[in-house]
Amino acid sequence: MAKSKPRRRRSGKSSAGADGLRVIPLGGLGQIGKNCTLFEYGEDLVMVDCGLMFPEEDMLGIDFVIPDVSYVEERKDRLRGIVVTHGHEDHIGALSFVLPRLDVPVYATKLTLGLIRNKLKEAAPTYEPRFHEIRAGDVVELGAFSFEFIAVCHSIPDGVGLAIHTPLGTIVHTGDFKLDPTPIDGRITDYSTFAELGRRGVLLMMSDSTNVERSGFTHSERLVGRTLEEIFRLHRNKRIVLATFASNLHRAQQVFDTASRFNRKVVLMGRSMVNNVELARELGYLDVEDSLIVTPQEVDRIPHNRLVVLTTGSQGEPFSGLVLMSKGEHHHIKLSEKDLVVVSATPIPGNEKLVSRTVNRLFACGCDVVYEREKEIHVSGHAAQEELKMLLAIVRPRYFVPVHGEYRHLVRHSQLAQDMGLPAKNVFLLQNGDVLQISKEKAQIKGNVSVGSILVDGRVLGELEGSVMQERRDLSEEGLLAISVVLSPQGALAGPVGTESRGFLHADMAEDLHRQVRDAVAKLVETSARKGDLDTEALTQRIKGRVRDLLRRQTRSYPLIMPMVSVVKE
Amino acid sequence: MAKSKPRRRRSGKSSAGADGLRVIPLGGLGQIGKNCTLFEYGEDLVMVDCGLMFPEEDMLGIDFVIPDVSYVEERKDRLRGIVVTHGHEDHIGALSFVLPRLDVPVYATKLTLGLIRNKLKEAAPTYEPRFHEIRAGDVVELGAFSFEFIAVCHSIPDGVGLAIHTPLGTIVHTGDFKLDPTPIDGRITDYSTFAELGRRGVLLMMSDSTNVERSGFTHSERLVGRTLEEIFRLHRNKRIVLATFASNLHRAQQVFDTASRFNRKVVLMGRSMVNNVELARELGYLDVEDSLIVTPQEVDRIPHNRLVVLTTGSQGEPFSGLVLMSKGEHHHIKLSEKDLVVVSATPIPGNEKLVSRTVNRLFACGCDVVYEREKEIHVSGHAAQEELKMLLAIVRPRYFVPVHGEYRHLVRHSQLAQDMGLPAKNVFLLQNGDVLQISKEKAQIKGNVSVGSILVDGRVLGELEGSVMQERRDLSEEGLLAISVVLSPQGALAGPVGTESRGFLHADMAEDLHRQVRDAVAKLVETSARKGDLDTEALTQRIKGRVRDLLRRQTRSYPLIMPMVSVVKE
Repeated sequence: MAKSKPRRRRSGKSSAGADGLRVIPLGGLGQIGKNCTLFEYGEDLVMVDCGLMFPEEDMLGIDFVIPDVSYVEERKDRLRGIVVTHGHEDHIGALSFVLPRLDVPVYATKLTLGLIRNKLKEAAPTYEPRFHEIRAGDVVELGAFSFEFIAVCHSIPDGVGLAIHTPLGTIVHTGDFKLDPTPIDGRITDYSTFAELGRRGVLLMMSDSTNVERSGFTHSERLVGRTLEEIFRLHRNKRIVLATFASNLHRAQQVFDTASRFNRKVVLMGRSMVNNVELARELGYLDVEDSLIVTPQEVDRIPHNRLVVLTTGSQGEPFSGLVLMSKGEHHHIKLSEKDLVVVSATPIPGNEKLVSRTVNRLFACGCDVVYEREKEIHVSGHAAQEELKMLLAIVRPRYFVPVHGEYRHLVRHSQLAQDMGLPAKNVFLLQNGDVLQISKEKAQIKGNVSVGSILVDGRVLGELEGSVMQERRDLSEEGLLAISVVLSPQGALAGPVGTESRGFLHADMAEDLHRQVRDAVAKLVETSARKGDLDTEALTQRIKGRVRDLLRRQTRSYPLIMPMVSVVKE
Repeated sequence: MAKSKPRRRRSGKSSAGADGLRVIPLGGLGQIGKNCTLFEYGEDLVMVDCGLMFPEEDMLGIDFVIPDVSYVEERKDRLRGIVVTHGHEDHIGALSFVLPRLDVPVYATKLTLGLIRNKLKEAAPTYEPRFHEIRAGDVVELGAFSFEFIAVCHSIPDGVGLAIHTPLGTIVHTGDFKLDPTPIDGRITDYSTFAELGRRGVLLMMSDSTNVERSGFTHSERLVGRTLEEIFRLHRNKRIVLATFASNLHRAQQVFDTASRFNRKVVLMGRSMVNNVELARELGYLDVEDSLIVTPQEVDRIPHNRLVVLTTGSQGEPFSGLVLMSKGEHHHIKLSEKDLVVVSATPIPGNEKLVSRTVNRLFACGCDVVYEREKEIHVSGHAAQEELKMLLAIVRPRYFVPVHGEYRHLVRHSQLAQDMGLPAKNVFLLQNGDVLQISKEKAQIKGNVSVGSILVDGRVLGELEGSVMQERRDLSEEGLLAISVVLSPQGALAGPVGTESRGFLHADMAEDLHRQVRDAVAKLVETSARKGDLDTEALTQRIKGRVRDLLRRQTRSYPLIMPMVSVVKE
């Protein structure tokens, strides 16, 4: 009896720290997108980031995917806040949906808060967020946790990494980072704080795995500036159209600076480019003279070779500025041989074809296009192998969890950490939902919480049934044939059999085949009626089988077959 | 009257050479795939290559695309033959459909004919092709043309380029080539013949544009051999699974050779790998001892580290060997930490995600995976910039037409030719269907023939209506809601309204919404009936409108709405 006492105390209502420290990724592991991590200690929960992911191509009709935060919703009285590392969609994109439901304070830097506010304005205009602006160097107490914000350099300004001080030790979360020694805004990744944390001892490090497959160092953003300089010098007689990520405000700054030096005006195209530049200027993240920027309406008054068009569309997104221009559908910019188009980005995996088609169309407009990697018109925002090693070497954590990567990135980053001397047993390859439980003695994966992906399809929010998605796939490949059958109460045909198809059949074959289907179904119904068979469900199945056979023989195609049997009232 | 005579003679029945020489690409320009080019002189037509293309992702349900050869079919009595440069799908893949309809002799090397024969066996088993085996160096007279075959090195053995001697001069068609100076089979691209042709004078050169964006030289296939050697040496304790293109028999030869040196057996997996290796051994293109190859049934008797699995699936193709293995669904090979998987290929544009997902799954199986470009486990089969320049420099054609490329490749290759000194007016950027007409004095694009893409959807062959494809896209994004309405001859409801949906709605919302739709439609029909309105077509439109409104308000979604109205017999 006496022996069981300590065990009973442990299994009772969790007292502060009884379960130790729990780290639970709700998204972002095994995928690049929808980053969202929970930190739990006793009664206190804090969420870090809450992003969206763009759908896989087999998620038909889906606009984007967000993490399932039901675990947090069930405990929202214990949620002390949401900390956001930077303003990219994969870190903030789900907040418009999740924040109004959780309604807790949000801690982030000024630009990040500005970007979140813009998104909320559209998606939840009546919700009043509780924003707490922080700066790198600040420390915020959230329950048992003390969050220290550390400047990191990335492809969007004002990103932070985190030192999360807990009763069991310090967790270092890198956020998305690179070690660019010459960033455009002069705000370098704060090595010295990371090193200081390392000296004092770090329990766990969670580090960005995006570029773990790339050897060496990621180039400095400044390299792009040099390339821009060269392009502007070589093409003095052309209008220059430059497409890049609307959130890459460092890139935008370099475009403005180069344009100014070459005495060109800049016009902004694409909604997110216009919005982001406006926000960044308002908040002081961009240093641009008013006179440098012209409106779309002023474009025609400016000589071709005195203008730069800064636009969205570097990923070939269907309704973006550059894509409309490439199709000749843009209201203000018509491309011709007088234009040089610079695609200042590399395609995000999955977008290769969209980008490639856009480039082909740009050439067909007659313009010159600069788009290859070798031209150094884009650099990544994420640390490559040598940077990852360097940060690991100065932080020297006891435990290591690679984050922000597909499965293979996490495996590679785990291997890299082990190459750096971490024992394999201290490196955890977590999946979304896994609970990493850390006590004074050890860390272990202990159970998991239910996580999933919420597919957002227009305004309808919910986990789309797998069967709905499968039906869409089937419909997309073979189309559908519907057959309406009206029966008398005695089971005989009470009217002509009707057929309708969508996404199926070539017009020239359709008429004859529809007739054959109607005849076959009529015959089948008559046979059933003669037998006195009144089971419409069984009849429906027989119609499906009969029509499937007929189509297979006649066309070797397999559309969805949808009989609709109704019985008239007597 | 006298003056009009010569003009009448010209516009009369075309006599030999009256229209000069006509070169008409039916496919392969502005796209990589379905290569097919016509050469026409007077009464004589010859087709070069007849390939397929894999569908774009918006071609839902389409298996592949072939060129529209109706221009040739209408003149098939004048078609003297089909010449095929090599055995890749984008050069032979449409023959199974086109050849039985055109029924002309085919001229190609032994391996190419073997591959075509295998395809015909499946698609047109009763058709008896007329094959003429040629070798590099042979000359074949086809009407006014004399075809000379020139050895070129590519990623499949026994490829040829062409010198097409015509009454107006010689056309050089490179086929797909690279200038690998150390090919596996020792059969180098025959520079000396190209140079000799150049010395004698070349009227027109048509050259492979695939890799025009890459600077320098394409690496030799032999480089892959060195990498294989290193991989085999470093992983003596693992089973090695290597995935590559089934047609890359040079690669297969190197795998066999390396396996043999390291005292390992080889098992072949994936239907096309098995078929191609069998064919190539039979025809003498692979030099492999029988004892080196084991059957899938023997695999379990061979120690893990004494086996190499040579398989398909390097592009992540859904039912290929490697993909089945990565999903744990392969009958013979279960992957584990005892395996090293080598993906010896780079993703073809559009396949990046499929490959990436396969690699992630392979890591999840616990195996080690080699897949990066930097590891030099794949080289391209196409010439890069310096090779293209070199061939242009020795052939020195009067006119130049870049072929085998997307639009941007053709533009870049045109620029490259101009950089090499060709006058812009002698470089023709053709599109599919353009007629390049060459006379003694000049060359010009003169009109075009109707070309299109025939989408092949299962067995159904035909040009799928744009509207069918659009319906499939709509269905794939929003699904469909069908509504059956049965009317009495007086226009009143003769039975309950029925609804069925596919690919639409979350189950929890469905029931209530279906009921609302049925109620709304019933009300609408009753109103119509009271007004004595018997026009079912108008009723159908009103139902669509009413239901669309209801769904927009309730769910903000826009499925296809398909009312089926039937009237019972009196």
